[in-house]
Amino acid sequence: MTPIKNDLFIRALLKQPVERTPVWMMRQAGRYLPEYREVRSKAGSFMQLCMNPELACEVTLQPLDRFNFDAAILFSDILTIPDAMGLGLSFAEGEGPQFARPVRTAADVTKLPVPDPEAELRYVIDAVRLIKANLQGRVPLIGFSGSPWTLATYMVEGKSSKSFQKVKSMMFEQPLLMHQMLDKLAQSVAAYLNAQIAAGADAVMVFDTWGGMLSHDDYLEFSLGYAQQVRQLLNTDRDGRQIPTILFTKGGGLWLEAMADTGYDALGLDWQTDIGSARARVGDKVALQGNMDPITLYAQPEVIREKVAKVLHGFGQGSGHVFNLGHGVLPDINPEHVKAMVDAVRELSPQYHSQA
Amino acid sequence: MTPIKNDLFIRALLKQPVERTPVWMMRQAGRYLPEYREVRSKAGSFMQLCMNPELACEVTLQPLDRFNFDAAILFSDILTIPDAMGLGLSFAEGEGPQFARPVRTAADVTKLPVPDPEAELRYVIDAVRLIKANLQGRVPLIGFSGSPWTLATYMVEGKSSKSFQKVKSMMFEQPLLMHQMLDKLAQSVAAYLNAQIAAGADAVMVFDTWGGMLSHDDYLEFSLGYAQQVRQLLNTDRDGRQIPTILFTKGGGLWLEAMADTGYDALGLDWQTDIGSARARVGDKVALQGNMDPITLYAQPEVIREKVAKVLHGFGQGSGHVFNLGHGVLPDINPEHVKAMVDAVRELSPQYHSQA
Repeated sequence: MTPIKNDLFIRALLKQPVERTPVWMMRQAGRYLPEYREVRSKAGSFMQLCMNPELACEVTLQPLDRFNFDAAILFSDILTIPDAMGLGLSFAEGEGPQFARPVRTAADVTKLPVPDPEAELRYVIDAVRLIKANLQGRVPLIGFSGSPWTLATYMVEGKSSKSFQKVKSMMFEQPLLMHQMLDKLAQSVAAYLNAQIAAGADAVMVFDTWGGMLSHDDYLEFSLGYAQQVRQLLNTDRDGRQIPTILFTKGGGLWLEAMADTGYDALGLDWQTDIGSARARVGDKVALQGNMDPITLYAQPEVIREKVAKVLHGFGQGSGHVFNLGHGVLPDINPEHVKAMVDAVRELSPQYHSQA
Repeated sequence: MTPIKNDLFIRALLKQPVERTPVWMMRQAGRYLPEYREVRSKAGSFMQLCMNPELACEVTLQPLDRFNFDAAILFSDILTIPDAMGLGLSFAEGEGPQFARPVRTAADVTKLPVPDPEAELRYVIDAVRLIKANLQGRVPLIGFSGSPWTLATYMVEGKSSKSFQKVKSMMFEQPLLMHQMLDKLAQSVAAYLNAQIAAGADAVMVFDTWGGMLSHDDYLEFSLGYAQQVRQLLNTDRDGRQIPTILFTKGGGLWLEAMADTGYDALGLDWQTDIGSARARVGDKVALQGNMDPITLYAQPEVIREKVAKVLHGFGQGSGHVFNLGHGVLPDINPEHVKAMVDAVRELSPQYHSQA
């Protein structure tokens, strides 16, 4: 395996000394980049882009060429697993994801398979292999998956939801059925991430986009419990190299202590959570990733720089911080503003690592 | 002033002993009730219903006749103030609120008036007077307003938003202008609530629906600071009777300590916040209102009863709890399920007040 030249990201996740704070951005390969939009229109649909390893590789590398990000993230979607389970994923223009065959009954749950990543999800694993080869060890590659709970929300609702009425009703009225479904999803997510790791992913991240819609107790039982099961099933040693793991629950700021006890190396923070308080709460258990408000990137470069400074100062001295937004970059952001953010992190962060 | 016969709600907010936990429900006068839908169709538009004191009074009282709620809440909208400022509020079917003249420039902010509640908002104050007279002291009447920040989000965006790009961009790039606008809004909200109190409201609640979209520091500066200014401007003594005040920030569970220091008597809790942990965090400073997941009401009555029991148990022994949902009741909830919730609170809560 090629050694990683810039491994700041890996070291920060493992809380080893770094010279400066590493930075990447959720959705960094995306619509805000004209070069992405060009490939996207060439590909046809969004899913056709995801399913074409060559094009997925091309768009994964685009933001690295334009900015100095310290990590690449696999270009894919969080809903590949339910699609591989046979639910029929599509993206209607301006409508978000939709499943042709949502999960509603006990029979629907019973017949859900645990997909073989090297078969039904082969296009993703091939993309990981191709990206890894093309990166030539430049920066680490992040693999990812949606969390079991977040996948379940889309699978039961059939599409994006505001109230999550269908999936929560199943949870309230048929908790055993929901547990059966989440257990299958945890197995599927773990197998998927293990295949990504085997194919070359240097770190993996679990996106729990909708865990924050649950009550505290329901979060622990139906979301965090299965994120923890995934963690326990991960093979995080590849040829003696440790593969760090990140758990991100949007809206999960209330529950960081519980999240820090699940075995993940790092927690993603949304922008609502104060990063200094978060660090005090989780102590040495985990590294933190985040958490500038994504809307900041609409502001002028000098404002962006101030807000970057604030997040860096909020985390404070020492390793264990990966700079990121608190959620994905928005599609109409000016790429020059992203550059202002990255430059600010590179220029302003070394002072927080003077003791390294 | 007629004495209030059932004053459980007031006593719980003031943490005085009660025999059982009082219960009401956000949006209790609303579309889930067939009798509401009948009046609503008679009125024409939603705003015509709000602006007709007789009809507003009628729908305010409907849920009291059907259930044994321990408080009435004025039927109105949180956006009456911006409408009174001249922004031109309308509700497109299925689209949510819209303003014809959103606030975008310094000139727009400068010309915003502070409305006189007895003039431009007379229809609301008349409704309060009429409801108060018709209640005949049966239960307390809650007056309310949107928070300055929440009003500002709609005024700048011009409609509902997911990302709050326009209002946050104004906040990031023109913070002084945003402060100028929020100061006017705080004065307007305080005058509006004071008029409601003078007209008979026995408690007032500030709905900060979108404070939870801000980062910690921005929340303190742009949302909570102005909710506090409102509180300082309130006349909470009416003829020697104390008018309790409630502050609800949806998504504000991370910031309860700061909220508890602003002088409000009680905090509303969304369903994500664990009520037992919240009580431990705020101590004796404030009462708590909430916080069952609104989606619970889709479940069967026996499940609803279990979840009610859980919230009551979570708060624990003693006064200082008003039972409510963690957000408004949804329009397609079966009224029988609401009855199951109210009955469960009445039956299960006396054990938590045995020491009273």
